[in-house]
Amino acid sequence: MRAPDRVVAVGADLLAEAVAGQAVEVERVDWRPPMAATEADLATVAADPRRHDANRQAVEAMLAVTAHLVDVAPASELLGLERGQFLHAGPPIGWDRAPGPLRGALMGGAALEGLVDDPEDAVRLFESGDGVSLEPCHHRGAVGPMAGVVTPSMWMFVLEDLASGRRTYCSLNEGLGKVLRYGAYGPEVLERLRWMGDVLGPLLQTAVRAVRDDTGPVDVTGILTQMLQMGDEAHNRNRAGTLMLLRDLAPALVSHGDRSQAAEALRFIGGNDHFFLNLAMPACKLALDAGRDIPGSTMVVAMARNGTDFGIQVSGTGDEWFTGPAQLADGLFLGDFGPDDANPDIGDSAITETAGIGGFAMATAPAIVRFVGGTVPDALATTRRMGEITLAANPRWSVPVLDFTGVPTGIDVTRVCRTGILPQINTGMAGKQAGVGQVGAGLVTPPAEIFPKALARLAALAR
Amino acid sequence: MRAPDRVVAVGADLLAEAVAGQAVEVERVDWRPPMAATEADLATVAADPRRHDANRQAVEAMLAVTAHLVDVAPASELLGLERGQFLHAGPPIGWDRAPGPLRGALMGGAALEGLVDDPEDAVRLFESGDGVSLEPCHHRGAVGPMAGVVTPSMWMFVLEDLASGRRTYCSLNEGLGKVLRYGAYGPEVLERLRWMGDVLGPLLQTAVRAVRDDTGPVDVTGILTQMLQMGDEAHNRNRAGTLMLLRDLAPALVSHGDRSQAAEALRFIGGNDHFFLNLAMPACKLALDAGRDIPGSTMVVAMARNGTDFGIQVSGTGDEWFTGPAQLADGLFLGDFGPDDANPDIGDSAITETAGIGGFAMATAPAIVRFVGGTVPDALATTRRMGEITLAANPRWSVPVLDFTGVPTGIDVTRVCRTGILPQINTGMAGKQAGVGQVGAGLVTPPAEIFPKALARLAALAR
Repeated sequence: MRAPDRVVAVGADLLAEAVAGQAVEVERVDWRPPMAATEADLATVAADPRRHDANRQAVEAMLAVTAHLVDVAPASELLGLERGQFLHAGPPIGWDRAPGPLRGALMGGAALEGLVDDPEDAVRLFESGDGVSLEPCHHRGAVGPMAGVVTPSMWMFVLEDLASGRRTYCSLNEGLGKVLRYGAYGPEVLERLRWMGDVLGPLLQTAVRAVRDDTGPVDVTGILTQMLQMGDEAHNRNRAGTLMLLRDLAPALVSHGDRSQAAEALRFIGGNDHFFLNLAMPACKLALDAGRDIPGSTMVVAMARNGTDFGIQVSGTGDEWFTGPAQLADGLFLGDFGPDDANPDIGDSAITETAGIGGFAMATAPAIVRFVGGTVPDALATTRRMGEITLAANPRWSVPVLDFTGVPTGIDVTRVCRTGILPQINTGMAGKQAGVGQVGAGLVTPPAEIFPKALARLAALAR
Repeated sequence: MRAPDRVVAVGADLLAEAVAGQAVEVERVDWRPPMAATEADLATVAADPRRHDANRQAVEAMLAVTAHLVDVAPASELLGLERGQFLHAGPPIGWDRAPGPLRGALMGGAALEGLVDDPEDAVRLFESGDGVSLEPCHHRGAVGPMAGVVTPSMWMFVLEDLASGRRTYCSLNEGLGKVLRYGAYGPEVLERLRWMGDVLGPLLQTAVRAVRDDTGPVDVTGILTQMLQMGDEAHNRNRAGTLMLLRDLAPALVSHGDRSQAAEALRFIGGNDHFFLNLAMPACKLALDAGRDIPGSTMVVAMARNGTDFGIQVSGTGDEWFTGPAQLADGLFLGDFGPDDANPDIGDSAITETAGIGGFAMATAPAIVRFVGGTVPDALATTRRMGEITLAANPRWSVPVLDFTGVPTGIDVTRVCRTGILPQINTGMAGKQAGVGQVGAGLVTPPAEIFPKALARLAALAR
């Protein structure tokens, strides 16, 4: 079922040929001991007779999903989100423990919804808790990048697995820099969000519905397949994906929308290389949701961060979150920002790595390494290393330079604990002060302790 | 000046790391003897005191060019092409020696221009030569893919090097399959060409002029830089380039064009992954034209094929063509077609390889190998091998997986003769019967003898 050996072998044939005539210095992946105090739980879970079939079932269910873009509509309609209800990224958290960027996004969201006039006034509102509530995106079938704040008036993409009818949701991407999802809430942020609600959302709804009804909905899983052949890893680089979405929606935008608004929308989408991220994420969630709730399965079905806690959910343990402190990313900073300005890891976007792309597909996106501060050898080594902790290679999402081997997919809690290798995540970095916005991008891993926690629960259930 | 050693070394660091833990089988590039009977000419040219500076000057001039899309207009206006005048790909040729696909394209072109009602009647017209004439695209500053037939009513892209004002031209791409450039001339081919003349050309003119005047012309050289980071080698794969062009023109198309025509144009461009090829080609010609006519330079400035002859032009030898028989490509065939159906190599598109992309940039486009029948190791080896016969690495066009090394650029006649390594070209294959259209795609090289011919002329001029 898993194919890392094939990954390495195929890569070697290919790459060995390419070093012709060179003296080759070889770096070996060291054997590592299991994570501390996991031996007993590893033995218990390894002996669970359900495990093998459960993991096979989880992987097969995940790989069978194809995500199609079937609609765009406001969160109030789609998720039943009501005035004062706010969704956020990561595992559950309250205002008291919310980090700066999540607070900033909530403050901006409160102003967007008209709960306050000045975002600064929202601090008292959230401190009091009167008429406001916070809930993870994941609990409503949604995912949100960075702070991941969703309010009732925000428009969302609707992705559907046509075979099962299962759906997931994600807000529309605002672009980079001073944007709500990075915790900025200035007038330009709110103005852009209002335009997205008044103009972009309705236009996209019309175009997405027209495409759906005329030629069939946009195949997001298929675009992801193409992206991975075009230098995108679909987390920090979504350039080709965004262009393909633009290609698929442009004729309908032109045919049905107001002419000048359509041109404005085309410019906005075309000017934001990350626009497709908000389709890649729910496509990954849609696949992973199909692998949930299989008793005995040790496959991770969500990794998500609220900027304070990093949490995972595992197929065999239901909706339980296993959490630990979110880490600081190691990477490159924008302008004069430095490590002291960065908030710990935040966002639901690690759902991409959970599904085998993003940091797991670094080998296919060498251009991204300059953006997150790595090197091309790092990129190839990362994809190879992730093969050590995953259950399968995804045949639909292949890496050309590794001779079209599938990306390593389906993180196995037991393999993580046994090898000590942590999932590699590409991420943007938000400023830790509310209101600052993006300060950089880099590489990060989950806190190691959450995997033994999940393993302990799996072991308890196996006994 | 040339960087192949660096290409190989950098590739090795990168790739060696990626084969960690593997036993590495290494294939060496064998030393090869010079091409037969070239020793004396090689010695003469090597001793030419002008050669070193001339080649440096040719390379620098080529690399300094940036191509911008400044206009779209009919060939009659741009090139002064008159009724009965036909441009074609490759070195000069008459109807008598023209191969099937060129004849088919000329027959269709004659019908398009109203010289005949039925394309079949054009055979007599061209046999008689009355009121018709053939001339290479290259002689009018243009390039044409495959048959490369240009008639007065066809609309063309205009590329300009803003620093020098130098311009090149190329027709609009028709798509794949049954198209004029592959020698098809049926009713659907002519209908599409009429739509391109009546609707697409004028729409593109409006959009290109609006973009040019509003935000500055589209930077085609810059798009090529991006494409090479997105899996395109810009000869047989132009998917990302086409999408970026669409992105850059879509808002203007929407703002200025008729709404339903604009939607139709967006669909046509978005549905044709090769649309950008007709911008990549004149961008390469624009760069190479800057390296022409430098006495003593041994750099190839054009490779072009008319389907019967393969010809090259060299900087130090002016407009002279050195020709030999066009070869059959080795590759994959569409549907039931096989090698017996294919015409020898045809088209001006080898201008991309002349400038260092296409087959020379195979390493950056592993996905293309499945289209032309190669393997990923072939792709990496090809780019490395082309470093043996070129004068420079192009710092603007880099290959991420080779740690951002520039593509091998500026074919040196002396290096080709000294090593026997021939330029590697990716190409489409036209059916050898007029009217058939595309039958496949594959890999091909020039006939070896044209390089000693060019070398002999360089030697004669050096004496």
